[in-house]
Amino acid sequence: MNSIKIFCPASVANLSCGFDILGLCLESVGDEMIITKIEEKKIIIKINSEYDLTEDPLKNAAGISVIKMLEFLNFDECGFRIQIDKKIKPGSGIGSSAASSAGSVYGVNKLLGNPLTKKQLITFALEGEKICSNTAHADNISPLIYGGITIVRNNKTLDIVKINTSNSLFISIMHPQIEIKTKDSRKLIKRKVDFSESVQQSANLAGFITGLFHEDYDLIKRSCNDLLIEPYRSILIPEFDKLKKIAYSNNSIGFGISGSGPSMFSLTKNFEDAISVEKELQKHYIRKKISFKYYISKINNEGIKVIN
Amino acid sequence: MNSIKIFCPASVANLSCGFDILGLCLESVGDEMIITKIEEKKIIIKINSEYDLTEDPLKNAAGISVIKMLEFLNFDECGFRIQIDKKIKPGSGIGSSAASSAGSVYGVNKLLGNPLTKKQLITFALEGEKICSNTAHADNISPLIYGGITIVRNNKTLDIVKINTSNSLFISIMHPQIEIKTKDSRKLIKRKVDFSESVQQSANLAGFITGLFHEDYDLIKRSCNDLLIEPYRSILIPEFDKLKKIAYSNNSIGFGISGSGPSMFSLTKNFEDAISVEKELQKHYIRKKISFKYYISKINNEGIKVIN
Repeated sequence: MNSIKIFCPASVANLSCGFDILGLCLESVGDEMIITKIEEKKIIIKINSEYDLTEDPLKNAAGISVIKMLEFLNFDECGFRIQIDKKIKPGSGIGSSAASSAGSVYGVNKLLGNPLTKKQLITFALEGEKICSNTAHADNISPLIYGGITIVRNNKTLDIVKINTSNSLFISIMHPQIEIKTKDSRKLIKRKVDFSESVQQSANLAGFITGLFHEDYDLIKRSCNDLLIEPYRSILIPEFDKLKKIAYSNNSIGFGISGSGPSMFSLTKNFEDAISVEKELQKHYIRKKISFKYYISKINNEGIKVIN
Repeated sequence: MNSIKIFCPASVANLSCGFDILGLCLESVGDEMIITKIEEKKIIIKINSEYDLTEDPLKNAAGISVIKMLEFLNFDECGFRIQIDKKIKPGSGIGSSAASSAGSVYGVNKLLGNPLTKKQLITFALEGEKICSNTAHADNISPLIYGGITIVRNNKTLDIVKINTSNSLFISIMHPQIEIKTKDSRKLIKRKVDFSESVQQSANLAGFITGLFHEDYDLIKRSCNDLLIEPYRSILIPEFDKLKKIAYSNNSIGFGISGSGPSMFSLTKNFEDAISVEKELQKHYIRKKISFKYYISKINNEGIKVIN
């Protein structure tokens, strides 16, 4: 096999109650990538995108990840051409750099006959994440590699667990067309938190996970609540509080900031509810003259996929 | 029905990573209680115990809980005699007052034809807890009422969820014969915690719960770790660090402080491992000349039980 075409999905990290812990993989939103073996022993990045992205392999997330991976494997038999059809806007909060990082290592690993484990793929994808967001956190990468919803139990040891989710859940993304950089957004996080708030945040996460296992949507809704970060970060997102109210009054079972924003996610227990949330959220942003993109997706239980 | 005899189990709160959230119900350790309707319209408490406990219904956890419950029900047709065979030592950290509080309201509710829901039973049992430990927390009471392992998702609204557990799990209790009062133990808790530690504590809880659902004992072991409270509270418990090491080197899949101590719990994935942990922990305390009691129990999925 000399060439592979893959779909690298967008992802939602945090999911309100699981800051730096939870991540979820989307099915209908993502980049496409074609990776091809080339004779020249180097990495060539080609990007097809409306966004201004570097094709320098030492500065692009996809390039860095693959370079580090090939160094580890001591592989120098050939080079790779990585062509990215970048659809996920950088800085949107739905894992644009994670898709590039995870997609490139996933694809090259396939072309080399899968010498690396999933955990190793995450290790090298993190090298790309580091370049783009100043933080090497696996919450966006993990759901791309494992599929579904993942828990980063420990980011240092990359102890990552996939949890099973109901097939009926839908996730919607409302993306206002402004940019928030992850590194700036992380500055809003307090270094110390109240013990009691820390306990309540944990209890919400416990409820959310149990709600997923029990398919108890009311429990998910009561639990999907972020006491520690949302109150600060949401200030940067236009009309956040109003949109949240609208979502919940239209049967959303979870609404919050996707990753470090500005995208927001809404969980619903079926497609019909996703549509009614979409209609009302869009109406509000149109009324307020705020431009946006909107996506509705199932949860992608497979993660990155090989496509034709 | 004029009289009822019940078994009121001991319980383990916190389970390391779930401070003020998790609680677990024991099967083979607990009080017995006989509750009898009496003509005289008052509550009479009779205690059979080696411990010095008040029989004043306004000061005893069982009395207070039932009085508040009967007030709520506007019930004054008869009184109740509550005879407690108190085997769980007060101040041991395995829910002695919770057993009295939950047992009395459970029993009286049965005698009255079950007018109250489980949530209401917890509400009134909390009144007894308040008297004994200065805190009205439902983490010990909830597993007695629901059975098994419970999550207190919200202590104010009493949003409580039972999670299912493997039938093979065993829990052991090592109880050094010293007393730590819950109200004193709570003073050791810091009011502010590091954000990163708070996240790791949450991630451990997420891992622990997922481990229970997946019956993944290695995940439970990696997750059963308390960063926020154990480092401070364990100082009060003789030989804690040494016992923890011994437990883990004898196949324990979780070791920590039970409730506010001084009892310690050890989780094991079967009875044989429970026995080998017991043998080695006991050996150490005997060597150090520390007196203790030791219990091994299955997890009680039913909670308080009517017995003959």
